[in-house]
Amino acid sequence: MANKSKQHIVQQFDAELKHLEEMLLEMGNLVEDQMVKVLQSLGDRNFELAEQVCATDTAIDNMEYKIDDMCALMIAKRQPAARDMRKIMTTIRSIWDLERIGDEITKIARSNIAMSEEKSLPKGASQVQRIGTDVAAMLKKSLNAIVQGDVQAAIVVAKADKEIDQHCTNAILGLSRSMAENPSQIDSCINLLWIIRSLERIGDRACNLTEHVVYLVHGKDIRHIYDYEELKNTVDK
Amino acid sequence: MANKSKQHIVQQFDAELKHLEEMLLEMGNLVEDQMVKVLQSLGDRNFELAEQVCATDTAIDNMEYKIDDMCALMIAKRQPAARDMRKIMTTIRSIWDLERIGDEITKIARSNIAMSEEKSLPKGASQVQRIGTDVAAMLKKSLNAIVQGDVQAAIVVAKADKEIDQHCTNAILGLSRSMAENPSQIDSCINLLWIIRSLERIGDRACNLTEHVVYLVHGKDIRHIYDYEELKNTVDK
Repeated sequence: MANKSKQHIVQQFDAELKHLEEMLLEMGNLVEDQMVKVLQSLGDRNFELAEQVCATDTAIDNMEYKIDDMCALMIAKRQPAARDMRKIMTTIRSIWDLERIGDEITKIARSNIAMSEEKSLPKGASQVQRIGTDVAAMLKKSLNAIVQGDVQAAIVVAKADKEIDQHCTNAILGLSRSMAENPSQIDSCINLLWIIRSLERIGDRACNLTEHVVYLVHGKDIRHIYDYEELKNTVDK
Repeated sequence: MANKSKQHIVQQFDAELKHLEEMLLEMGNLVEDQMVKVLQSLGDRNFELAEQVCATDTAIDNMEYKIDDMCALMIAKRQPAARDMRKIMTTIRSIWDLERIGDEITKIARSNIAMSEEKSLPKGASQVQRIGTDVAAMLKKSLNAIVQGDVQAAIVVAKADKEIDQHCTNAILGLSRSMAENPSQIDSCINLLWIIRSLERIGDRACNLTEHVVYLVHGKDIRHIYDYEELKNTVDK
Protein backbone atom coordinates (compact mmCIF):
# COMPACT_ATOMS: atom_id res chain seq x y z
CA MET A 1 0.00 0.00 0.00
CA ALA A 2 1.28 3.48 -0.81
CA ASN A 3 2.53 5.44 2.19
CA LYS A 4 0.04 8.22 1.52
CA SER A 5 -2.86 5.82 1.54
CA LYS A 6 -1.62 4.19 4.75
CA GLN A 7 -1.31 7.60 6.38
CA HIS A 8 -4.83 8.43 5.30
CA ILE A 9 -6.19 5.31 6.99
CA VAL A 10 -4.29 6.08 10.20
CA GLN A 11 -5.67 9.63 10.22
CA GLN A 12 -9.18 8.36 9.60
CA PHE A 13 -8.86 5.86 12.46
CA ASP A 14 -7.53 8.56 14.79
CA ALA A 15 -10.53 10.71 13.88
CA GLU A 16 -12.82 7.80 14.67
CA LEU A 17 -11.15 7.24 18.04
CA LYS A 18 -11.52 10.93 18.81
CA HIS A 19 -15.19 10.82 17.88
CA LEU A 20 -15.63 7.75 20.09
CA GLU A 21 -14.11 9.65 23.01
CA GLU A 22 -16.44 12.59 22.42
CA MET A 23 -19.46 10.33 22.36
CA LEU A 24 -18.38 8.64 25.60
CA LEU A 25 -18.04 12.04 27.25
CA GLU A 26 -21.39 13.15 25.92
CA MET A 27 -22.94 10.04 27.46
CA GLY A 28 -21.07 10.73 30.72
CA ASN A 29 -22.37 14.30 30.80
CA LEU A 30 -25.92 13.15 30.27
CA VAL A 31 -25.64 10.63 33.11
CA GLU A 32 -24.11 13.27 35.39
CA ASP A 33 -26.93 15.65 34.52
CA GLN A 34 -29.48 12.94 35.36
CA MET A 35 -27.78 12.37 38.71
CA VAL A 36 -28.02 16.08 39.60
CA LYS A 37 -31.67 16.14 38.57
CA VAL A 38 -32.67 13.04 40.49
CA LEU A 39 -31.13 14.39 43.69
CA GLN A 40 -32.88 17.70 43.15
CA SER A 41 -36.18 15.90 42.59
CA LEU A 42 -35.60 13.97 45.82
CA GLY A 43 -34.67 17.02 47.88
CA ASP A 44 -37.50 19.21 46.56
CA ARG A 45 -39.98 16.31 46.30
CA ASN A 46 -40.42 17.43 42.71
CA PHE A 47 -42.16 14.44 41.13
CA GLU A 48 -42.49 16.08 37.74
CA LEU A 49 -38.71 16.35 37.56
CA ALA A 50 -38.47 12.71 38.68
CA GLU A 51 -40.75 11.74 35.78
CA GLN A 52 -38.49 13.66 33.42
CA VAL A 53 -35.50 11.72 34.73
CA CYS A 54 -37.29 8.42 34.03
CA ALA A 55 -38.19 9.57 30.51
CA THR A 56 -34.60 10.54 29.70
CA ASP A 57 -33.28 7.05 30.46
CA THR A 58 -34.16 5.91 26.93
CA ALA A 59 -31.75 8.51 25.54
CA ILE A 60 -28.95 6.95 27.63
CA ASP A 61 -29.88 3.45 26.46
CA ASN A 62 -29.80 4.65 22.86
CA MET A 63 -26.40 6.24 23.29
CA GLU A 64 -25.07 2.98 24.67
CA TYR A 65 -26.44 1.13 21.64
CA LYS A 66 -24.90 3.60 19.25
CA ILE A 67 -21.45 3.65 20.83
CA ASP A 68 -21.45 -0.13 21.27
CA ASP A 69 -22.23 -0.56 17.55
CA MET A 70 -19.55 1.93 16.64
CA CYS A 71 -16.97 0.02 18.72
CA ALA A 72 -17.89 -3.33 17.16
CA LEU A 73 -17.64 -1.80 13.69
CA MET A 74 -14.27 -0.22 14.44
CA ILE A 75 -12.87 -3.53 15.68
CA ALA A 76 -14.17 -5.41 12.64
CA LYS A 77 -13.08 -2.80 10.09
CA ARG A 78 -9.83 -1.52 11.56
CA GLN A 79 -8.51 -4.56 13.43
CA PRO A 80 -6.80 -2.23 15.89
CA ALA A 81 -3.47 -2.90 17.57
CA ALA A 82 -3.03 -3.44 21.33
CA ARG A 83 -3.39 0.09 22.72
CA ASP A 84 -6.18 1.14 20.38
CA MET A 85 -7.93 -2.11 21.11
CA ARG A 86 -7.66 -1.33 24.82
CA LYS A 87 -9.17 2.08 24.18
CA ILE A 88 -12.14 0.53 22.42
CA MET A 89 -12.58 -2.19 25.07
CA THR A 90 -12.39 0.49 27.77
CA THR A 91 -15.06 2.48 26.00
CA ILE A 92 -17.31 -0.58 25.78
CA ARG A 93 -16.86 -1.28 29.49
CA SER A 94 -17.43 2.36 30.41
CA ILE A 95 -20.66 2.74 28.46
CA TRP A 96 -22.02 -0.42 30.06
CA ASP A 97 -21.29 1.06 33.47
CA LEU A 98 -22.81 4.40 32.48
CA GLU A 99 -25.91 2.69 31.20
CA ARG A 100 -26.27 0.82 34.50
CA ILE A 101 -25.74 4.04 36.46
CA GLY A 102 -28.54 5.47 34.34
CA ASP A 103 -30.74 2.53 35.36
CA GLU A 104 -30.01 3.08 39.05
CA ILE A 105 -30.81 6.79 38.69
CA THR A 106 -34.17 5.86 37.16
CA LYS A 107 -34.80 3.50 40.07
CA ILE A 108 -34.13 6.35 42.51
CA ALA A 109 -36.58 8.54 40.57
CA ARG A 110 -39.21 5.77 40.74
CA SER A 111 -38.72 5.26 44.49
CA ASN A 112 -39.11 9.01 44.91
CA ILE A 113 -42.35 9.00 42.91
CA ALA A 114 -43.56 6.04 45.00
CA MET A 115 -43.37 8.33 48.06
CA SER A 116 -45.41 11.13 46.45
CA GLU A 117 -48.53 10.36 48.49
CA GLU A 118 -46.69 10.76 51.81
CA LYS A 119 -47.16 14.10 53.56
CA SER A 120 -43.66 14.04 54.99
CA LEU A 121 -40.62 11.82 54.69
CA PRO A 122 -39.00 9.84 57.51
CA LYS A 123 -36.17 11.66 59.25
CA GLY A 124 -33.59 9.41 57.57
CA ALA A 125 -34.36 11.13 54.24
CA SER A 126 -31.92 13.99 54.74
CA GLN A 127 -29.11 11.53 55.47
CA VAL A 128 -29.92 9.72 52.21
CA GLN A 129 -29.78 13.06 50.42
CA ARG A 130 -26.31 13.72 51.84
CA ILE A 131 -25.09 10.30 50.66
CA GLY A 132 -26.52 11.19 47.25
CA THR A 133 -24.46 14.39 47.16
CA ASP A 134 -21.30 12.40 48.00
CA VAL A 135 -22.03 9.83 45.31
CA ALA A 136 -22.66 12.58 42.75
CA ALA A 137 -19.27 14.11 43.61
CA MET A 138 -17.65 10.69 43.21
CA LEU A 139 -19.29 10.19 39.83
CA LYS A 140 -18.07 13.61 38.73
CA LYS A 141 -14.50 12.67 39.74
CA SER A 142 -14.72 9.41 37.81
CA LEU A 143 -15.93 11.16 34.67
CA ASN A 144 -13.13 13.72 34.97
CA ALA A 145 -10.66 10.85 35.34
CA ILE A 146 -11.79 9.53 31.95
CA VAL A 147 -11.27 12.95 30.33
CA GLN A 148 -7.85 13.40 31.88
CA GLY A 149 -6.67 9.78 31.78
CA ASP A 150 -6.04 10.20 35.52
CA VAL A 151 -5.09 6.84 37.07
CA GLN A 152 -4.72 8.30 40.58
CA ALA A 153 -8.46 8.95 40.62
CA ALA A 154 -8.94 5.18 41.10
CA ILE A 155 -7.39 5.50 44.57
CA VAL A 156 -9.31 8.64 45.53
CA VAL A 157 -12.62 7.25 44.33
CA ALA A 158 -12.08 3.83 45.96
CA LYS A 159 -11.48 5.60 49.29
CA ALA A 160 -14.61 7.72 48.84
CA ASP A 161 -16.55 4.57 48.02
CA LYS A 162 -15.53 2.92 51.30
CA GLU A 163 -16.71 5.98 53.24
CA ILE A 164 -19.98 6.01 51.34
CA ASP A 165 -20.54 2.32 52.09
CA GLN A 166 -20.09 3.12 55.80
CA HIS A 167 -22.57 6.04 55.57
CA CYS A 168 -25.02 3.71 53.84
CA THR A 169 -24.71 1.12 56.61
CA ASN A 170 -25.42 3.83 59.19
CA ALA A 171 -28.36 5.18 57.21
CA ILE A 172 -29.86 1.69 56.96
CA LEU A 173 -29.56 1.25 60.75
CA GLY A 174 -31.25 4.63 61.20
CA LEU A 175 -34.12 3.63 58.94
CA SER A 176 -34.50 0.33 60.77
CA ARG A 177 -35.01 2.32 64.01
CA SER A 178 -37.42 4.71 62.30
CA MET A 179 -39.56 1.81 61.15
CA ALA A 180 -39.75 0.42 64.68
CA GLU A 181 -40.65 3.83 66.12
CA ASN A 182 -43.09 4.80 63.44
CA PRO A 183 -44.67 1.85 61.63
CA SER A 184 -46.85 4.15 59.53
CA GLN A 185 -43.71 5.22 57.69
CA ILE A 186 -42.47 1.71 56.91
CA ASP A 187 -43.28 1.94 53.20
CA SER A 188 -41.42 5.24 52.84
CA CYS A 189 -38.50 3.76 54.74
CA ILE A 190 -38.41 0.80 52.33
CA ASN A 191 -38.28 3.24 49.42
CA LEU A 192 -35.40 5.05 51.09
CA LEU A 193 -33.66 1.68 51.55
CA TRP A 194 -33.94 1.08 47.79
CA ILE A 195 -32.54 4.54 47.14
CA ILE A 196 -29.57 3.83 49.43
CA ARG A 197 -28.91 0.57 47.64
CA SER A 198 -29.03 2.32 44.26
CA LEU A 199 -26.64 5.01 45.49
CA GLU A 200 -24.25 2.31 46.71
CA ARG A 201 -24.34 0.72 43.28
CA ILE A 202 -23.73 4.00 41.51
CA GLY A 203 -20.70 4.41 43.77
CA ASP A 204 -19.49 0.93 42.76
CA ARG A 205 -19.93 1.77 39.09
CA ALA A 206 -18.09 5.06 39.51
CA CYS A 207 -15.20 2.97 40.89
CA ASN A 208 -15.43 0.74 37.81
CA LEU A 209 -15.06 3.79 35.57
CA THR A 210 -11.78 4.77 37.19
CA GLU A 211 -10.62 1.14 37.05
CA HIS A 212 -11.13 1.20 33.29
CA VAL A 213 -8.89 4.28 33.11
CA VAL A 214 -6.11 2.31 34.87
CA TYR A 215 -6.62 -0.55 32.42
CA LEU A 216 -6.39 1.87 29.52
CA VAL A 217 -3.27 3.65 30.72
CA HIS A 218 -1.34 0.81 32.40
CA GLY A 219 -2.98 -2.26 30.83
CA LYS A 220 -3.64 -3.53 34.37
CA ASP A 221 -6.89 -5.02 35.51
CA ILE A 222 -7.55 -3.82 39.09
CA ARG A 223 -11.21 -4.71 39.29
CA HIS A 224 -10.86 -7.34 41.96
CA ILE A 225 -8.39 -5.58 44.23
CA TYR A 226 -10.25 -4.64 47.38
CA ASP A 227 -7.34 -3.87 49.68
CA TYR A 228 -6.49 -0.16 49.73
CA GLU A 229 -2.69 -0.56 50.03
CA GLU A 230 -2.54 -3.21 47.33
CA LEU A 231 -4.60 -0.97 45.07
CA LYS A 232 -2.31 1.99 45.71
CA ASN A 233 0.77 -0.09 44.95
CA THR A 234 -0.70 -1.46 41.75
CA VAL A 235 -1.80 1.93 40.43
CA ASP A 236 1.44 3.67 41.39
CA LYS A 237 3.76 1.08 39.84
CA MET B 1 0.62 -17.97 2.49
CA ALA B 2 0.50 -21.64 1.62
CA ASN B 3 -2.93 -23.21 1.77
CA LYS B 4 -1.79 -25.75 4.32
CA SER B 5 -0.52 -23.05 6.65
CA LYS B 6 -3.75 -21.07 6.29
CA GLN B 7 -5.76 -24.16 7.08
CA HIS B 8 -3.62 -24.75 10.14
CA ILE B 9 -4.35 -21.25 11.45
CA VAL B 10 -8.10 -21.71 10.88
CA GLN B 11 -8.02 -25.01 12.74
CA GLN B 12 -6.09 -23.47 15.60
CA PHE B 13 -8.56 -20.59 15.85
CA ASP B 14 -11.51 -23.01 15.81
CA ALA B 15 -9.85 -24.93 18.63
CA GLU B 16 -9.44 -21.69 20.57
CA LEU B 17 -13.09 -20.78 20.04
CA LYS B 18 -14.10 -24.24 21.24
CA HIS B 19 -11.93 -23.86 24.33
CA LEU B 20 -13.47 -20.44 24.98
CA GLU B 21 -16.94 -22.00 24.84
CA GLU B 22 -15.91 -24.72 27.28
CA MET B 23 -14.53 -22.17 29.72
CA LEU B 24 -17.72 -20.11 29.52
CA LEU B 25 -19.77 -23.21 30.29
CA GLU B 26 -17.48 -24.13 33.15
CA MET B 27 -18.00 -20.66 34.62
CA GLY B 28 -21.76 -21.01 34.07
CA ASN B 29 -21.80 -24.34 35.86
CA LEU B 30 -19.92 -22.91 38.81
CA VAL B 31 -22.37 -20.00 39.10
CA GLU B 32 -25.32 -22.38 38.86
CA ASP B 33 -23.79 -24.54 41.57
CA GLN B 34 -23.36 -21.46 43.78
CA MET B 35 -27.01 -20.55 43.23
CA VAL B 36 -28.17 -24.01 44.34
CA LYS B 37 -25.95 -23.85 47.41
CA VAL B 38 -27.01 -20.37 48.49
CA LEU B 39 -30.68 -21.34 48.33
CA GLN B 40 -29.94 -24.47 50.30
CA SER B 41 -28.05 -22.42 52.90
CA LEU B 42 -31.03 -20.08 53.13
CA GLY B 43 -33.63 -22.83 53.43
CA ASP B 44 -31.66 -24.88 55.98
CA ARG B 45 -30.22 -21.81 57.74
CA ASN B 46 -26.85 -23.44 57.13
CA PHE B 47 -24.43 -20.56 57.74
CA GLU B 48 -21.36 -22.68 57.17
CA LEU B 49 -22.54 -23.41 53.66
CA ALA B 50 -23.25 -19.69 53.22
CA GLU B 51 -19.64 -18.95 54.20
CA GLN B 52 -18.47 -21.49 51.63
CA VAL B 53 -20.51 -19.70 48.98
CA CYS B 54 -18.85 -16.39 49.88
CA ALA B 55 -15.40 -17.97 49.71
CA THR B 56 -16.02 -19.47 46.26
CA ASP B 57 -16.80 -16.05 44.73
CA THR B 58 -13.08 -15.43 44.20
CA ALA B 59 -12.94 -18.47 41.91
CA ILE B 60 -15.68 -16.92 39.76
CA ASP B 61 -13.86 -13.58 39.67
CA ASN B 62 -10.69 -15.36 38.59
CA MET B 63 -12.48 -17.21 35.82
CA GLU B 64 -13.85 -13.94 34.53
CA TYR B 65 -10.35 -12.49 34.49
CA LYS B 66 -8.94 -15.48 32.65
CA ILE B 67 -11.65 -15.64 29.98
CA ASP B 68 -11.62 -11.86 29.51
CA ASP B 69 -7.85 -11.95 28.93
CA MET B 70 -8.22 -14.83 26.53
CA CYS B 71 -10.85 -12.92 24.54
CA ALA B 72 -8.70 -9.79 24.33
CA LEU B 73 -5.75 -11.89 23.18
CA MET B 74 -7.80 -13.68 20.54
CA ILE B 75 -9.07 -10.39 19.13
CA ALA B 76 -5.58 -8.89 19.02
CA LYS B 77 -3.90 -11.99 17.60
CA ARG B 78 -6.55 -13.37 15.27
CA GLN B 79 -8.40 -10.24 14.18
CA PRO B 80 -11.54 -12.31 13.77
CA ALA B 81 -14.21 -11.77 11.12
CA ALA B 82 -17.78 -10.69 11.88
CA ARG B 83 -19.37 -13.88 13.23
CA ASP B 84 -16.33 -15.00 15.23
CA MET B 85 -16.02 -11.48 16.58
CA ARG B 86 -19.65 -11.66 17.69
CA LYS B 87 -18.90 -14.94 19.42
CA ILE B 88 -16.05 -13.38 21.35
CA MET B 89 -18.04 -10.23 22.21
CA THR B 90 -20.93 -12.43 23.36
CA THR B 91 -18.56 -14.38 25.58
CA ILE B 92 -17.22 -11.15 27.12
CA ARG B 93 -20.73 -9.91 27.81
CA SER B 94 -21.80 -13.27 29.24
CA ILE B 95 -18.89 -13.61 31.65
CA TRP B 96 -19.56 -10.09 32.94
CA ASP B 97 -23.14 -11.05 33.64
CA LEU B 98 -22.07 -14.32 35.25
CA GLU B 99 -19.59 -12.50 37.44
CA ARG B 100 -22.32 -10.08 38.56
CA ILE B 101 -24.68 -12.98 39.24
CA GLY B 102 -21.89 -14.42 41.37
CA ASP B 103 -21.73 -11.12 43.28
CA GLU B 104 -25.47 -11.14 43.93
CA ILE B 105 -25.28 -14.76 45.14
CA THR B 106 -22.58 -13.69 47.61
CA LYS B 107 -24.80 -10.84 48.78
CA ILE B 108 -27.61 -13.32 49.43
CA ALA B 109 -25.20 -15.50 51.42
CA ARG B 110 -24.12 -12.47 53.48
CA SER B 111 -27.71 -11.41 54.19
CA ASN B 112 -28.40 -14.97 55.29
CA ILE B 113 -25.39 -14.92 57.63
CA ALA B 114 -26.58 -11.55 58.99
CA MET B 115 -29.73 -13.32 60.19
CA SER B 116 -27.83 -16.08 62.00
CA GLU B 117 -28.57 -14.64 65.46
CA GLU B 118 -32.33 -14.72 64.92
CA LYS B 119 -34.16 -17.67 66.47
CA SER B 120 -36.73 -17.77 63.69
CA LEU B 121 -37.27 -15.98 60.40
CA PRO B 122 -40.24 -13.76 59.52
CA LYS B 123 -43.05 -15.59 57.77
CA GLY B 124 -42.13 -13.92 54.44
CA ALA B 125 -38.96 -16.06 54.32
CA SER B 126 -40.62 -19.07 52.69
CA GLN B 127 -42.01 -16.84 49.92
CA VAL B 128 -38.50 -15.51 49.30
CA GLN B 129 -37.25 -19.10 49.12
CA ARG B 130 -39.87 -19.90 46.45
CA ILE B 131 -38.81 -16.90 44.39
CA GLY B 132 -35.24 -18.14 44.71
CA THR B 133 -36.26 -21.53 43.29
CA ASP B 134 -37.92 -19.81 40.32
CA VAL B 135 -34.88 -17.63 39.68
CA ALA B 136 -32.59 -20.67 39.86
CA ALA B 137 -34.75 -22.41 37.23
CA MET B 138 -34.57 -19.29 35.06
CA LEU B 139 -30.79 -19.19 35.38
CA LYS B 140 -30.59 -22.86 34.40
CA LYS B 141 -32.69 -22.17 31.29
CA SER B 142 -30.42 -19.26 30.32
CA LEU B 143 -27.29 -21.35 30.69
CA ASN B 144 -28.85 -24.14 28.61
CA ALA B 145 -29.73 -21.53 25.96
CA ILE B 146 -26.05 -20.67 25.67
CA VAL B 147 -25.12 -24.34 25.21
CA GLN B 148 -27.81 -24.93 22.62
CA GLY B 149 -27.73 -21.52 20.90
CA ASP B 150 -31.46 -21.40 21.62
CA VAL B 151 -32.86 -17.95 20.72
CA GLN B 152 -36.40 -18.86 21.78
CA ALA B 153 -35.19 -19.06 25.38
CA ALA B 154 -35.06 -15.24 25.37
CA ILE B 155 -38.86 -15.17 25.13
CA VAL B 156 -39.43 -17.87 27.75
CA VAL B 157 -36.98 -16.33 30.19
CA ALA B 158 -38.31 -12.77 29.69
CA LYS B 159 -41.79 -14.04 30.52
CA ALA B 160 -40.53 -15.84 33.63
CA ASP B 161 -38.72 -12.64 34.64
CA LYS B 162 -41.96 -10.63 34.52
CA GLU B 163 -43.69 -13.17 36.76
CA ILE B 164 -40.78 -13.15 39.17
CA ASP B 165 -40.86 -9.34 39.34
CA GLN B 166 -44.53 -9.59 40.30
CA HIS B 167 -43.79 -12.19 42.99
CA CYS B 168 -41.05 -9.91 44.32
CA THR B 169 -43.44 -6.95 44.53
CA ASN B 170 -45.90 -9.12 46.48
CA ALA B 171 -43.18 -10.43 48.78
CA ILE B 172 -42.03 -6.87 49.53
CA LEU B 173 -45.60 -5.88 50.44
CA GLY B 174 -45.81 -8.92 52.71
CA LEU B 175 -42.58 -7.99 54.46
CA SER B 176 -43.78 -4.42 54.90
CA ARG B 177 -46.83 -5.78 56.76
CA SER B 178 -44.67 -8.15 58.81
CA MET B 179 -42.52 -5.24 59.95
CA ALA B 180 -45.56 -3.28 61.08
CA GLU B 181 -46.98 -6.28 62.96
CA ASN B 182 -43.72 -7.40 64.48
CA PRO B 183 -41.15 -4.61 64.86
CA SER B 184 -38.68 -6.98 66.56
CA GLN B 185 -38.21 -8.67 63.20
CA ILE B 186 -37.53 -5.49 61.22
CA ASP B 187 -33.83 -6.23 60.78
CA SER B 188 -34.50 -9.73 59.46
CA CYS B 189 -37.14 -8.31 57.14
CA ILE B 190 -34.61 -5.81 55.78
CA ASN B 191 -32.22 -8.69 55.09
CA LEU B 192 -34.99 -10.51 53.27
CA LEU B 193 -35.64 -7.33 51.25
CA TRP B 194 -31.99 -7.32 50.17
CA ILE B 195 -32.27 -10.97 49.20
CA ILE B 196 -35.36 -10.24 47.10
CA ARG B 197 -33.56 -7.40 45.36
CA SER B 198 -30.58 -9.66 44.63
CA LEU B 199 -32.86 -12.37 43.25
CA GLU B 200 -34.54 -9.78 41.00
CA ARG B 201 -31.14 -8.77 39.67
CA ILE B 202 -30.08 -12.35 39.05
CA GLY B 203 -33.29 -12.71 37.06
CA ASP B 204 -32.39 -9.61 35.02
CA ARG B 205 -28.90 -10.96 34.36
CA ALA B 206 -30.33 -14.34 33.32
CA CYS B 207 -32.39 -12.40 30.76
CA ASN B 208 -29.19 -10.69 29.58
CA LEU B 209 -27.59 -14.08 28.99
CA THR B 210 -30.38 -15.15 26.63
CA GLU B 211 -30.24 -11.74 24.92
CA HIS B 212 -26.56 -12.36 24.16
CA VAL B 213 -27.55 -15.66 22.51
CA VAL B 214 -29.93 -13.76 20.21
CA TYR B 215 -27.16 -11.30 19.40
CA LEU B 216 -24.82 -14.18 18.60
CA VAL B 217 -27.26 -16.07 16.38
CA HIS B 218 -29.16 -13.23 14.70
CA GLY B 219 -26.78 -10.30 15.20
CA LYS B 220 -29.69 -8.41 16.78
CA ASP B 221 -29.43 -6.40 19.97
CA ILE B 222 -32.65 -6.91 21.94
CA ARG B 223 -31.46 -5.60 25.29
CA HIS B 224 -33.78 -2.63 25.44
CA ILE B 225 -36.96 -4.26 24.15
CA TYR B 226 -39.32 -4.46 27.10
CA ASP B 227 -42.58 -5.18 25.27
CA TYR B 228 -43.34 -8.90 25.08
CA GLU B 229 -44.92 -8.90 21.59
CA GLU B 230 -42.15 -6.76 20.14
CA LEU B 231 -39.57 -9.07 21.66
CA LYS B 232 -41.31 -12.13 20.22
CA ASN B 233 -41.47 -10.57 16.75
CA THR B 234 -37.81 -9.58 16.84
CA VAL B 235 -36.59 -12.98 17.99
CA ASP B 236 -38.82 -14.90 15.56
CA LYS B 237 -37.89 -12.89 12.48
